[in-house]
Amino acid sequence: MQTIHSLFFPESVALIGASSDPERIGGRVLRFMREGGFQGTIYPINKGEALVQGLPAYKSISDVPGPVDQAVIIIPAAGVETALREAVAKGVKSVQILTAGFAEIDEAGKALQQKLVDICRAAEVRMLGPNSLGLLNLSNQYSATFSTALNGLRPVKGHIALATQSGAFGSATYGMASLRGLGFSKIIATGNEADVDVAECIDYLADDAETRVICAAVESCKDGTRLRQALLKAARAGKPVLIMKAGRTEVGASAAATHTGSLAGNDTVYDTVFAECGAYRPQSIEEMLDIAYVCAVTGHLPANDDVAILTGSGGIGILMADHASDHGLALPPLSAGASAAVREVLPFAVAANPLDTTAQVTAVASGVTRTLEALLTHSAYGTVFAYLAHVGLSPTRFQSTSDELIALKQKFPERGLVMVMLATPEVAAALDAHGIPTFADPSRAVLAIAGARQLARRQAALYTPSSGQRSAPALGDVSTEAAAKKVLAEAGLPMLPEKVCTSAEEAATTAARYGFPAVAKISSPDIAHKTEIGGVLLNLQDAEAVRQAHGELLRRARAAAPQARIDGVLITPMLKGGVETILGLHMDPTFGPMLMFGSGGTAVELFKDVAFASAPVDAARARQLVDAVQSSRLLRQWRGGPQYDEAALVDAICKLSAFAETHAAQLQSIDLNPLVVREKGAVCLDAVITLREASAI
Amino acid sequence: MQTIHSLFFPESVALIGASSDPERIGGRVLRFMREGGFQGTIYPINKGEALVQGLPAYKSISDVPGPVDQAVIIIPAAGVETALREAVAKGVKSVQILTAGFAEIDEAGKALQQKLVDICRAAEVRMLGPNSLGLLNLSNQYSATFSTALNGLRPVKGHIALATQSGAFGSATYGMASLRGLGFSKIIATGNEADVDVAECIDYLADDAETRVICAAVESCKDGTRLRQALLKAARAGKPVLIMKAGRTEVGASAAATHTGSLAGNDTVYDTVFAECGAYRPQSIEEMLDIAYVCAVTGHLPANDDVAILTGSGGIGILMADHASDHGLALPPLSAGASAAVREVLPFAVAANPLDTTAQVTAVASGVTRTLEALLTHSAYGTVFAYLAHVGLSPTRFQSTSDELIALKQKFPERGLVMVMLATPEVAAALDAHGIPTFADPSRAVLAIAGARQLARRQAALYTPSSGQRSAPALGDVSTEAAAKKVLAEAGLPMLPEKVCTSAEEAATTAARYGFPAVAKISSPDIAHKTEIGGVLLNLQDAEAVRQAHGELLRRARAAAPQARIDGVLITPMLKGGVETILGLHMDPTFGPMLMFGSGGTAVELFKDVAFASAPVDAARARQLVDAVQSSRLLRQWRGGPQYDEAALVDAICKLSAFAETHAAQLQSIDLNPLVVREKGAVCLDAVITLREASAI
Repeated sequence: MQTIHSLFFPESVALIGASSDPERIGGRVLRFMREGGFQGTIYPINKGEALVQGLPAYKSISDVPGPVDQAVIIIPAAGVETALREAVAKGVKSVQILTAGFAEIDEAGKALQQKLVDICRAAEVRMLGPNSLGLLNLSNQYSATFSTALNGLRPVKGHIALATQSGAFGSATYGMASLRGLGFSKIIATGNEADVDVAECIDYLADDAETRVICAAVESCKDGTRLRQALLKAARAGKPVLIMKAGRTEVGASAAATHTGSLAGNDTVYDTVFAECGAYRPQSIEEMLDIAYVCAVTGHLPANDDVAILTGSGGIGILMADHASDHGLALPPLSAGASAAVREVLPFAVAANPLDTTAQVTAVASGVTRTLEALLTHSAYGTVFAYLAHVGLSPTRFQSTSDELIALKQKFPERGLVMVMLATPEVAAALDAHGIPTFADPSRAVLAIAGARQLARRQAALYTPSSGQRSAPALGDVSTEAAAKKVLAEAGLPMLPEKVCTSAEEAATTAARYGFPAVAKISSPDIAHKTEIGGVLLNLQDAEAVRQAHGELLRRARAAAPQARIDGVLITPMLKGGVETILGLHMDPTFGPMLMFGSGGTAVELFKDVAFASAPVDAARARQLVDAVQSSRLLRQWRGGPQYDEAALVDAICKLSAFAETHAAQLQSIDLNPLVVREKGAVCLDAVITLREASAI
Repeated sequence: MQTIHSLFFPESVALIGASSDPERIGGRVLRFMREGGFQGTIYPINKGEALVQGLPAYKSISDVPGPVDQAVIIIPAAGVETALREAVAKGVKSVQILTAGFAEIDEAGKALQQKLVDICRAAEVRMLGPNSLGLLNLSNQYSATFSTALNGLRPVKGHIALATQSGAFGSATYGMASLRGLGFSKIIATGNEADVDVAECIDYLADDAETRVICAAVESCKDGTRLRQALLKAARAGKPVLIMKAGRTEVGASAAATHTGSLAGNDTVYDTVFAECGAYRPQSIEEMLDIAYVCAVTGHLPANDDVAILTGSGGIGILMADHASDHGLALPPLSAGASAAVREVLPFAVAANPLDTTAQVTAVASGVTRTLEALLTHSAYGTVFAYLAHVGLSPTRFQSTSDELIALKQKFPERGLVMVMLATPEVAAALDAHGIPTFADPSRAVLAIAGARQLARRQAALYTPSSGQRSAPALGDVSTEAAAKKVLAEAGLPMLPEKVCTSAEEAATTAARYGFPAVAKISSPDIAHKTEIGGVLLNLQDAEAVRQAHGELLRRARAAAPQARIDGVLITPMLKGGVETILGLHMDPTFGPMLMFGSGGTAVELFKDVAFASAPVDAARARQLVDAVQSSRLLRQWRGGPQYDEAALVDAICKLSAFAETHAAQLQSIDLNPLVVREKGAVCLDAVITLREASAI
């Protein structure tokens, strides 16, 4: 399959549906294409007119004399198939279908859309859309879009690429970016994604020399593997990806059948996959643009978490320090060398971090830049912020400082130098051009750097789950706790001895053999939530208590669920001590198997204190999963308590992961709840395995 | 004492230190004062020149022929006292001391500053500063400041007041606000606050007819009561206060002696007091300005939590809905009536919330405004957002929509109508002038309304702790658990029976009387953390176990703390079941007694899942304190468990509050940890009382 290069770089374009009215959709596309300064050949196709906006027009693409690289189709949906066939016959390499009214409307539209796909596939023609807002390529000034955002805002060439499914979302981002003077390399809206999707755009942009940072937005993702691979490719190329995904979807009914499923809403899975693949998920368009701006201007990510803050206002310095600490940045104090160097420039200043220069810095010649130089020379701060109030509003007075800052940045090209000040657009642009970003709001400056640093951390710790699914014999019965535990025990997961007993006497004998106290639980494939019907009795001290428990459980089960098949009563020894954790697996329809780990009993539910990882995992990744959970501190000599066996926990996670990999085709979800981590070893006290519906396999 | 009115409204001003150089500090003040258009009389005071910036100058304020209302002093610190004496002698009502170099520098400066205070107090003259950046009053165009922010940005008259301690912080806020066209009523920087502080400014501004919203920033607060009263006054006047407090201070060593103290860092106390007094604490200057903008433009706060979102982009609608849900706003679906009315305008739209009009809305005459009108007419949404992409960048095309929106707002003046679109400053200003705010970023629009709504909620639930401290006999010995529990039990707090036993036999007999199992704890005024030395033995099943425990505890105590005085061994019955909570009290140096409540054992530490309330509390406020803790869900039939006795918990909180009120003069902190809430009743299992250092009383 061809790449989507041809979509961005046509030499000749037929615009099918070009209109003489520059305000109508088909007219806007042509107008913007010409206003943009595209140097290729444009062929307006219009059934009724010989001249369209001054250009010779053709009744059909077939009538165009020369070759045509690309067709842009913007006629009503009913005519699109014919137009596409003609374009393909003409030999186009790519086609953009901007027309709406296909899969997004109804089943008939879906069928028609599939026809368009089939036509393109057969001819090896790449297709954008349908229902796409088109694209912009600032490298060759090629513009094919009807977005009215271009009426007021001309695109500026820069280093940010933008790939969105929704044209409206793309326009909103383009508009906000353009108003603040941010420049783009390429912009593309994928619409219905019948052929090209956002993932493929990210893949393409990862190779694009003009693009330093990729902004993306997905609404739904049909091919999780492709998105994952594209994100990983960009991350490996050192190219930051900022990807928005609006909509915290309610989890489906089937997924909610288990703890793991209900906690692993689709949204959390996106968070996990984006993080594993080195991408950052902004919460707002503005946050995305702030981070993109830093990446585009500096061309690098912060080398470490350490920041220094130079400020003429103590209060602003503290505000910035608060944000830095809250968002994963550190403010180590100045080294002795840096302190000495700073004091040489500013004898009156206390060499702390934040470094409050006080207003007196203005009385020192080149005070700010010399202090910054002292800091950069004698320290390893990845980023140095300078709060300069409103000096950037006086371009003439600021000129010498600006020149000094640019010289300084050239001396330290790999260090982040971020200005926080009010500035005219021209003053900011001059610094931008030399790799020095400027923010008006101190908080946003810190958050943008924190976001960029998060990207750096993630790019350095990419996780690719190995490709998965081994063929394996089908799982047998896993419908009861006992059956589920049996297959999991065979897979190496630690279980207590246990037995389903069919008489009170057998129960008593079994419990005695294991040692008291004992636990008795009803065993039935039809009773998933045993506790809710009183189907678990704990702390049975002797044989008589077990005998009574056996009878009582059968009575309770019959009363609560008269139709349930009862296998008997499960007897296990009662375990005391240890830390309760929950370990689970959930098969995500988009991204495949996801492991979930939580700790500390109620914390899982009350605080959603759980973390996720794509399966399979290795031991290192399993440890990260444990570390990502707050309550895991309970395992580590919490308040003078013991060190619990984290190695056994990590081993259990790896074993569950391997089991899930083997049986991926059959599994919907697994809950080990609780998995108790002890001072030596770990043991699973309950297990539920849910298989996929037969129809879904 | 006079109010600070005279500071803002002088009719004649002597500028002591006026300079002919319009760029020097004393020259800037004069220049800005004249540029601002102040209509009062200005008397430059300058020892050397007869004319200053074209105005007749005087060698001393004493030489001024007529009366002088206010002196603004901007000469070096050494000369300030003399100048102030002369000004007072001249009969000024108020004085601004912009000069720095007083209490912020050293002890000598502090002493000098106190002299200035004394001079002013004696003469009933109000003083701003020293070390103040001055003030601006847009009502009479009076400006007395040397902030260079005024070089580039002329102040605009509006409805936002700004009161900050730090001039730099004030300048930063002024600058950011001015760049986005926000207008001010009054701006004041209090500097060293020798006389006038931010609290008094808030108090004054609460009465100011020109001010609709008050922005404030404090660095430290000397008089917590005054700040509290000022915030309450503003809230009762329905005037929103947005107050920043940078710096999450580390808690002092004395405070950290108890759980409550260590969890009640100063910063959390500020959060609590601001919330109780109806104020909002923004995290960034931009957030403060976003909310201030909404308040200033609309003149009212959202009437309820319900919002509707009208959008032409599904993705943007979902993004906004996510933020709304995350920040306490609700998106109830359209009523049947509203649905029908909307469908009349937009037959093709699905009448959901967010309401996606799709791009087709543009094909319907006045589609947006008619849909908004349908929504407002047939629903009670406090706020309706309309996402309009970039239409505001085309003023001519947007004119009719703008007119319709203004008419609509006039029809529904109490409903919030918020535009989310890119717009020219003029387009936005036209809507602003009619009470319709506009945001470019969809997320910020939602967060600003969420902030305004938070203010409304807080204003409706103001909490004023009653004035406190009754005289009471001094507390006796509270140095051991037993002693502390005794006085708390006398105050009505629920305790188990317990006895300090001095022999193994007495311990065994006592335990038998209470009933087994029993608990034994070492009792010593010198051992605060019993658990750490193994000084607590639980679950003692019979008399023999208690006897052995007695001996064992004495041995352990002697081994761990050979010097400790040992009172004996405390025997109590062992309690099972119930929910562990922590209840505490901490004496905050600024704001007085603060109650703390937490729940769920480890959650307190792991997740800082605690809440605070100013003491004393009534039952209603005690219930809010319980409700504010996540883990309190454990009390309420959590996962099929019982309902625990919340009434008993609330009663215990009230009893502790009353106890603290009675003994406020002596107390530093109290920990009841755990306080176990049972199905019937509650009981405190351990208690620590810390008294203030004698020197601090």
